[in-house]
Formats: sequence, C-alpha cells, structure tokens
Amino acid sequence: MAAPYVHTFRVRYHECDAQGIVFNANWFTYFDVTLTEWFREAFGSYDALVGAGTDVVLAETTATFKASARFDEELGISAEVERLGTTSMVVRFTARRGEDELVLGRTVYVFVDTRTLGKREIPADVRAKLGEYVSG
Amino acid sequence: MAAPYVHTFRVRYHECDAQGIVFNANWFTYFDVTLTEWFREAFGSYDALVGAGTDVVLAETTATFKASARFDEELGISAEVERLGTTSMVVRFTARRGEDELVLGRTVYVFVDTRTLGKREIPADVRAKLGEYVSG
Amino acid sequence: MAAPYVHTFRVRYHECDAQGIVFNANWFTYFDVTLTEWFREAFGSYDALVGAGTDVVLAETTATFKASARFDEELGISAEVERLGTTSMVVRFTARRGEDELVLGRTVYVFVDTRTLGKREIPADVRAKLGEYVSG
Amino acid sequence: MAAPYVHTFRVRYHECDAQGIVFNANWFTYFDVTLTEWFREAFGSYDALVGAGTDVVLAETTATFKASARFDEELGISAEVERLGTTSMVVRFTARRGEDELVLGRTVYVFVDTRTLGKREIPADVRAKLGEYVSG
Repeated sequence: MAAPYVHTFRVRYHECDAQGIVFNANWFTYFDVTLTEWFREAFGSYDALVGAGTDVVLAETTATFKASARFDEELGISAEVERLGTTSMVVRFTARRGEDELVLGRTVYVFVDTRTLGKREIPADVRAKLGEYVSG
Repeated sequence: MAAPYVHTFRVRYHECDAQGIVFNANWFTYFDVTLTEWFREAFGSYDALVGAGTDVVLAETTATFKASARFDEELGISAEVERLGTTSMVVRFTARRGEDELVLGRTVYVFVDTRTLGKREIPADVRAKLGEYVSG
Repeated sequence: MAAPYVHTFRVRYHECDAQGIVFNANWFTYFDVTLTEWFREAFGSYDALVGAGTDVVLAETTATFKASARFDEELGISAEVERLGTTSMVVRFTARRGEDELVLGRTVYVFVDTRTLGKREIPADVRAKLGEYVSG
Repeated sequence: MAAPYVHTFRVRYHECDAQGIVFNANWFTYFDVTLTEWFREAFGSYDALVGAGTDVVLAETTATFKASARFDEELGISAEVERLGTTSMVVRFTARRGEDELVLGRTVYVFVDTRTLGKREIPADVRAKLGEYVSG
C-alpha cells in the first residue's frame, strides 16, 4: 500500500484575509489542487483521466478547522481514500504545518462519463490505481 | 419569527471555472458574503458586532452539491439558525436559482472575544437577535 | 450623451489581504464586473452581445493606485469609452469611495468574432450603443 | 549581474475562467507571487525585508496580453528591475510557456517605511541587492 499522497506548497499572500490567516474557502481550493497533483502521480495527469473518458464531480465536501495558517508558511496536505465505492469515492485530506494538523477535509467524489456527464462505474484501471491510496 | 434572511446576487465571470460553472470553493465564499449581509440586517453591520467585542470563527463547514450555477445567473442564498448554543451556533445556508435548490451549506460558528480570541458566551443582545432567525 | 455608467458594490471580506485592504489584482476583477454590468445596461446582457457573434478580449490593462479600500466599504466604478476604434476600444475606469478617487483603470479591448476568435470590426449597432458612453 | 529571477509554477484549475484560460486578473496575482519568490532569493524572505522596516506598495501596474494559458500548463515568470530610483523601482515581468511570451507586466513599486507607511529611500543594502537584477 502506498503512503498517502502529500502535496506541499506555500501560502500565497492573496489567499490570506484581513485577519492575516488563510480565508476559509481557500482550504477547499487547496484540496482541489492536492487532487490535481495526486492524480498526476496516479494517472500521469488529471487530463489523462479526463481524456480516457472519466471525470469526478463533488457531491459533498467538509472542512473541520483546528488551527490557522499564515502567509508564506509551508504546508503539506495528504490525500487518502477512505472508501472506494462502485461509482463514488470518499477522500480524506489532512493539512499540516510540520506535525500540527490544521484543517481536516472530507470530500465525496462521484465518477461521471465525460460525454454524458452521467454517473458511471469507476473503470477497472482507475480503481486499481486508487486502491493503492486506500487508508489502512 | 423572522423569515430566513435571503441574500441575492449574480454569479461573476471569474467565479466560474473551465467547465463554465461556479467553482466549488466559491460557494463557501458566497456563504461568507451571505453572513455579512445577514449580520448587516441583524446588527447594523458585521463590524458593529466586532466593535462590540464579539466575532465568530468557523469550526466546521459543509457543502452538499445538488446542481450547478453559471455566469450571470441570479441566485438567492438563505440563512437560518439550526441551533443556538451557549458559545456556538449552527447555520444552514440554501442556495437557490428560482425554486431550484443548488447547494446546501451547514456551518458551525464559535463565538470568540475579539481581544483574547478565546471562546465566549453569546452576549444576550446578540442571542436575542439571532433567535429571530432560528428555523421553525 | 449618456453619463458614464457607474457600478456600485461593497468590498467583500475575502477580497482584502492581510493588510486589510483590497488586494491589487482584485481591482481588475472589479473592472471586469463593471464591464459586465455596463454591457447589461447597453446590450441587455453580456451574453446578448456574445450571442450576436461578438466578444471582447483584453489586449492591455493598467491600474494606477491612489488610495486603498477596506472591507464592507461601498464603492462606485465608472466606465467611459476613451477611444472607439475600428476593431478595438479603450475604456477608462474610475473607482471612487464617495468623491475620493481610489484607483484609475485603462483597458484596451479588441473585438473578436465568437466563432473564429479572430479580430473583427465593431458591428454598427454595437458601435452606436458604445458611442453613447464616449467621454466628453 | 545576476540573470533575471524566474519563478516557475503550474496553472491551477480555479485560476481559469469559463473560456478555459487564465482569468486576466490572475496574471497580477502571479506577478505578486513572483515578487514574493524573488524576494526570498534576494532577501531570505519577503518578511525579512518587512521585518527590517521596509515594504513596497504598488503605484501602477500594467499587463499586456499576447497569448493565453490553460489549466495545468507549466509557466515561468521572469522579473527584472527596469529602473532603480531613490524611493521607487520599476519591475518588468515576462510570463512564458517554454519560449513563447504570453503576458508582459510592468509594475511601479514605491518603498515605504513599515511604521509610518510613508515613502522612504531604498536602504543601501536593499538597493545593492536589487541592483543585481537590473536588466542589461
């Protein structure tokens, strides 16, 4: 089993609000960027997945805020698969500064056919790849 | 009991992504703007609340996506208090285009003292005002 | 001759940075929103223009910063046509808080055919409409 | 003389608009991030400069658009000093995808005292450092 994928990045100035901390909605943007980078590791690129006829759309997403982050801090966000269903998966994101957990995310993604945009079963090769990131 | 507060606005061009729909994280920005406008109705302004020594911080927030929205569409987001606790409240947001429900939000806010940033009881006058928006 | 179009709005919380003032790039977003609202007045909607086969793309844009703006302030941005060329126009934006000029914008837009995306002459009816907003 | 500083990064999904290209205002955000990373190379960090009592504010900024960029493309933005004045400097940014020039930026920064926020002369050590990035 692979370790969870971890995306590291720095907080950009404009992502902080007047309190000097990352604005709440931007954590969901960070999760989105983490998915892109994780899919690059898993599938070559996000577009490779889409090009093969499969895309993911969000059904539900949650963030639990434990601590804040500031401009220029280096953060890591890990992504692991909590549940791999027939047509959907649940991903857990954990944002950390060093060892400190800052924000926990949980997103339900539904797999869709890129032509019809209708729900579809996760293709076998995609499932096999994502299976490597199921949390222990 | 007051009707739920409703904030109406148009989707801006840059809030949509390459799929032509509102980017997921921007719904949380919309909820934030709705809170600001709701507090204007309830307290005169968000700053009036802060000036009186009380602020709110997010403990957890969730969005459930039912349908998407596009550039220039006119949307309404309603806000109602689901639960008014001692030091926190749960707010439900419902984003609609006409009668259609697009996105449901649920946010747990914790009340803090603006000087210490520590948790505080909701002041009596604030509680009385918010009580008018508790959902039936 | 029409008065310049003026779009009024409030500064949203997340549009301010850690200094508590509107982040520089967001002024260009404000100009973009102002264009949308101005074209609503002039053409019914931005999409009506696009639906008739014409779109505008930015060739160059400049902002000159004279003063800053803060959360929740009500601002007005005026738009006037400085020059109406054969295939392009220059628009001047002036952002004000009350009488105070905060930021001046100047954008060169090129008119393109929505199918070919190539440069095109400004259609006569579009030109006539925009002519009403040429600055005196 | 140092080569111009170059910041490389990938276009994030939410930075593209409904046309699938980077939204115009986001190029100014990219220039801002490039300044942060350049100052990290020059001064250790942006905060090191600020901590020593000096900050920069924008007086004017321009972008000239030659070509667009899309999701996930890897771009490089170079920064060079065009003019190093007594209390201000002019920086040229050039955004490229490979050899292709996409967007040219030009920003006038004024140096301010972090306490008074008034204009100040560029400190000798800051000037010496920035002098290494003056374009040939």
